[in-house]
Amino acid sequence: MLTLTTPIEMQRPPVLRFGAGTLSSFAGWVADSGFKAPFVIADSVNAARLELLGLGDVRCFGDVVPEPDIPNLNAAVIAAKGADLIIGFGGGSAMDLAKLVAVLAGQDMAFGDISGPHRAPARTVGLVQIPTTAGTGSEVGTRALVTDPETMNKVATESLNMLADVAIIDPDLTVSMPAFVTAATGVDAMAHCTEAYTSKRSHPIIDAYALQGIELVGKYLRRAVDDGSDVEARNGLALASLYGGVCLGPVNTTSGHAVSYPLGTRHKIAHGIANALIFPHTLAANAASVPEKTAKICAALGFEAGSDQAVLAGARAFCEGLGLDMSLRAYGVPEDDLAAMASEAHAIRRLLDWNPVDLSVADIEAIYKAAY
Amino acid sequence: MLTLTTPIEMQRPPVLRFGAGTLSSFAGWVADSGFKAPFVIADSVNAARLELLGLGDVRCFGDVVPEPDIPNLNAAVIAAKGADLIIGFGGGSAMDLAKLVAVLAGQDMAFGDISGPHRAPARTVGLVQIPTTAGTGSEVGTRALVTDPETMNKVATESLNMLADVAIIDPDLTVSMPAFVTAATGVDAMAHCTEAYTSKRSHPIIDAYALQGIELVGKYLRRAVDDGSDVEARNGLALASLYGGVCLGPVNTTSGHAVSYPLGTRHKIAHGIANALIFPHTLAANAASVPEKTAKICAALGFEAGSDQAVLAGARAFCEGLGLDMSLRAYGVPEDDLAAMASEAHAIRRLLDWNPVDLSVADIEAIYKAAY
Repeated sequence: MLTLTTPIEMQRPPVLRFGAGTLSSFAGWVADSGFKAPFVIADSVNAARLELLGLGDVRCFGDVVPEPDIPNLNAAVIAAKGADLIIGFGGGSAMDLAKLVAVLAGQDMAFGDISGPHRAPARTVGLVQIPTTAGTGSEVGTRALVTDPETMNKVATESLNMLADVAIIDPDLTVSMPAFVTAATGVDAMAHCTEAYTSKRSHPIIDAYALQGIELVGKYLRRAVDDGSDVEARNGLALASLYGGVCLGPVNTTSGHAVSYPLGTRHKIAHGIANALIFPHTLAANAASVPEKTAKICAALGFEAGSDQAVLAGARAFCEGLGLDMSLRAYGVPEDDLAAMASEAHAIRRLLDWNPVDLSVADIEAIYKAAY
Repeated sequence: MLTLTTPIEMQRPPVLRFGAGTLSSFAGWVADSGFKAPFVIADSVNAARLELLGLGDVRCFGDVVPEPDIPNLNAAVIAAKGADLIIGFGGGSAMDLAKLVAVLAGQDMAFGDISGPHRAPARTVGLVQIPTTAGTGSEVGTRALVTDPETMNKVATESLNMLADVAIIDPDLTVSMPAFVTAATGVDAMAHCTEAYTSKRSHPIIDAYALQGIELVGKYLRRAVDDGSDVEARNGLALASLYGGVCLGPVNTTSGHAVSYPLGTRHKIAHGIANALIFPHTLAANAASVPEKTAKICAALGFEAGSDQAVLAGARAFCEGLGLDMSLRAYGVPEDDLAAMASEAHAIRRLLDWNPVDLSVADIEAIYKAAY
């Protein structure tokens, strides 16, 4: 845990437009900024509603897949040739690919030349992020994750050059999300906040965003799941997602995300679901080392902390209350893969090194078994 | 009072470096960014310690005056000819002038061509803000105030083009501030937060920054006044100042600043002192219309709200506890100017229109008399 006197660098798009209806300002911004060749990076769902952007017949790569891999990125880069403005329009996958496409556009470089920290070149094109889910917070960040199909690892690339010029966070775009996706993405936002809040490198400045984000999820996620048209709840979750994104930059996640990654990379479980499956277990595993913060997290989500078992049960009940099936088995994970998954998760040192307690391979395998 | 569902635009430099010692990274940033001709805008105190910037023999306009006027700006613009990076190094006056110099640099334009909202052209030079006080929050904003000597009014100019590329907030720079300046600037930061928090257009997203800023001032200002070398307190106040700056953009101040402006423009009372002199009176005048928020402000500053008179007495005692003389008389304001001052303050509609209660010219004159 860091203190107020520990220096911190905070990066965020210089302009955030937040609120229902703010997307209507986008076409004017594109025109005022002088961009002539906007290009959209989207998943198939959002590629089918490009008219919402107000840009007329805009070019688009609409084949972003969940948990995108390097070939998916490469296809997007080729499609975007000639663009002067890249627009990420979707969830974390689309926005992450948009960041990478934006720094690769107009450069004679491949992903391998820019992957990792601080290698991406200055952008020659503009970048706008427009989230359509409320979960990843990718719209305010400098980081993108793509899976290397050879190793099955998520490769994190990070650069200030991947920061958007503008993020437009219009919660109206999230109203059409099914309850299941609302629940999963909302848990993802909460997990970003929770893990940053309890990280070894948590910082009081970021803690304030984290706790607000968790409180927003506690207040609004169930409401949005129960009634997708609840605009106030959709606003609250969009803000929680943004705050989760703010937490990712200087602090980042820890064990919750590390332990859930193999569920995505190896078994194609959606990122938010994977986080929900693991979250109660890592919250409980960390509770003894960060008791005060764990108590605040539990209170914000509407249950009392108490023993590790109480934390686990409360967090599990919170997720089940959102309609999520909380067993790995239900998502088709083969039981004989748990040991390999644990080894893979344990190797994600960039996250696990900051977890408040050290988790061994055996600890992680025990979590998978308990979650099975 | 706005709600979470009211759209909001938030602008902030994409990079904030916050914390003691962060200034040491500045020279490297200048070199990495390829700037060849940095130019510093500073008051005389900071112009005498340019070596802290680590830029060697850097060019500087070191004649920024408190409450700068248009001639002061014009002199800075002429001096900065040929610069490719403008560095604001000082309090709000230096940083405000730096914003204006940065948008005027390389343009065939005068202040009259860019003053007011959204007229400043795109910058052709870089802009970095390095605050040396903890009060104005100017480092994170898009607004600059200069006094028109003909009308004695403060002219507000605002543009996204006036936003810094990087703000470096190094509380070590504030350690040498005398107790008197520490107190005055700390009250200014608190006033930004308080007035935004109680504004008619207060917004829940900004309220969270405002209340944190007030709490930080309540916790740390007296400590920093009593012991200027208290690094934790200096960090806390630097953060409060930054949060105050965040409040200014989308919400801004109300009656506290409007009523205090004539003290600066007509009688050269330092901005923070002027705010302190007026703050207890406007807090009390507004209390009945925003009772819950007033109670939170008072609690954050360490006293109980109660009646309007109790609010006034508590806020006054808070300021006196910082060593500030709280009578207009003590600062040489002539009593026969109060009526003219009230007319002038009342005309500042861009602020007063958002005050939670309507204050007449007579109300404002009564405040001056009570503060006399």
